[in-house]
Amino acid sequence: MSQSPLHAFDRATRLVASADGSLSGSADPAYAHAVGPFGGITAATLLNAALTHPQRIGTPVALTVNYAGPVAEGEFRIDAVPVRTNRSTQHWSITLAQGGEVSTTASAVFALRRETWTATDAGFPEAPPPAGLTPLDTAKLTPWFRNYEIRLIRGRMLDTSRPADELDSLTQFWIRDEPPRPLDFASLAAICDSFYPRIFVRRPLWVAAGTVSMTTYFHADEAQLAAQGSRPVLGSARASHFGRGYHDQSAEIWSDAGALLATSHQIVYYKE
Amino acid sequence: MSQSPLHAFDRATRLVASADGSLSGSADPAYAHAVGPFGGITAATLLNAALTHPQRIGTPVALTVNYAGPVAEGEFRIDAVPVRTNRSTQHWSITLAQGGEVSTTASAVFALRRETWTATDAGFPEAPPPAGLTPLDTAKLTPWFRNYEIRLIRGRMLDTSRPADELDSLTQFWIRDEPPRPLDFASLAAICDSFYPRIFVRRPLWVAAGTVSMTTYFHADEAQLAAQGSRPVLGSARASHFGRGYHDQSAEIWSDAGALLATSHQIVYYKE
Repeated sequence: MSQSPLHAFDRATRLVASADGSLSGSADPAYAHAVGPFGGITAATLLNAALTHPQRIGTPVALTVNYAGPVAEGEFRIDAVPVRTNRSTQHWSITLAQGGEVSTTASAVFALRRETWTATDAGFPEAPPPAGLTPLDTAKLTPWFRNYEIRLIRGRMLDTSRPADELDSLTQFWIRDEPPRPLDFASLAAICDSFYPRIFVRRPLWVAAGTVSMTTYFHADEAQLAAQGSRPVLGSARASHFGRGYHDQSAEIWSDAGALLATSHQIVYYKE
Repeated sequence: MSQSPLHAFDRATRLVASADGSLSGSADPAYAHAVGPFGGITAATLLNAALTHPQRIGTPVALTVNYAGPVAEGEFRIDAVPVRTNRSTQHWSITLAQGGEVSTTASAVFALRRETWTATDAGFPEAPPPAGLTPLDTAKLTPWFRNYEIRLIRGRMLDTSRPADELDSLTQFWIRDEPPRPLDFASLAAICDSFYPRIFVRRPLWVAAGTVSMTTYFHADEAQLAAQGSRPVLGSARASHFGRGYHDQSAEIWSDAGALLATSHQIVYYKE
């Protein structure tokens, strides 16, 4: 019998417990970006530290990741502390360090969720099905892109052919892990950071840019993630303001059945 | 000569440095809510811990506050640590504790900001000027409301007179501190939490509800805040999804001159 190889996502987010209660992992070259790894894989790894912790209760409701400094290739240390556990909620503080220096901080809220009154006010975007759209050619992009299949609906980056009077910052695409992998909370957290900086769409011009802080709210439960499986999810992202070196971004991730799985917000540094 | 009395906001967010480097403050009854203080005053106090820290550089770009447990009336301890200081950014971890138990955690990103290309894609809401709108009667509301003058444009809470087919979660109002106080980063952070839970607007029905985690992005600089002075700012907030005991909220705070001062997001617990 052959053992099926680990998916690159599982390899990149894998953590090993140390004797002192900390966790160790390794920045995987497969998810490398321009400076350090793709922010989404770091977010997923930090969330994974809480997800796999023996004291964890419930499922993720909120995750904030602050990118304080670059993560170098190779080993890192994660400390995940359940700062406070209530009857149905749990608050986590998580840090990632290399060589004794903190490069990323995170907080997470987990909760035991139960059925309540429900409504979705955001509208499912009008979008053609993924099958008819050509996957993005990731050959010339930074390595992490090759772990995703992205079928763009609108909002290509650095599209200088767009008329100046049609410039907005909206990107919509279908996205799934490549090769396909069943969606879970960690991979959903990573996908929330898969939208390139909005300034590449809005101007459209390349400038140095990177996520400084990202917050994701998880609306999905485990049953919805299981139902989604490894089929593409629909992502939509836009900015509201660019100024003095920073712009925001708000994103929605939808299941192909029209359920809002997560909303995610970030603030992005840009130069010039 | 008489000394002018401290504004309630400055009294409630005041911190005193202890010999061990921590800060002490006190939950002010003037900002009391149903269980513990108004979340906005706690956010402002935590931000204030970084703003007044001798090692602080720059101005706030992002603030995340996690409400892990109730804050009781009386004294609390805040520890604010500049986890990492780069050339132009600084990352903070901040905790608020009472009796040795953490009740609130926060992270903040500060930055030295400089002029860059700028654009606002979000639209300034169409709204009548504040002078023609009646201030909200706060007499029967929880105490913290009386520190604000709120002139509602739309989205009253628990408005059972709304036709069922017009139910959305949008609230818009003009808001300022009462008595008037010049806007600064701390008071702007507090105002970002001044929107009552969206579920009170959307259903509209009273249920137990409260903010669990809030993230604010600051687009304003000190000059814009100074220009705004103590005149009302325009706030707008809506939810995108309600389900399994949690709903999100996205808010915008605009100057009366049409500048987007802050965008703020939160996840709110609700029962039933």
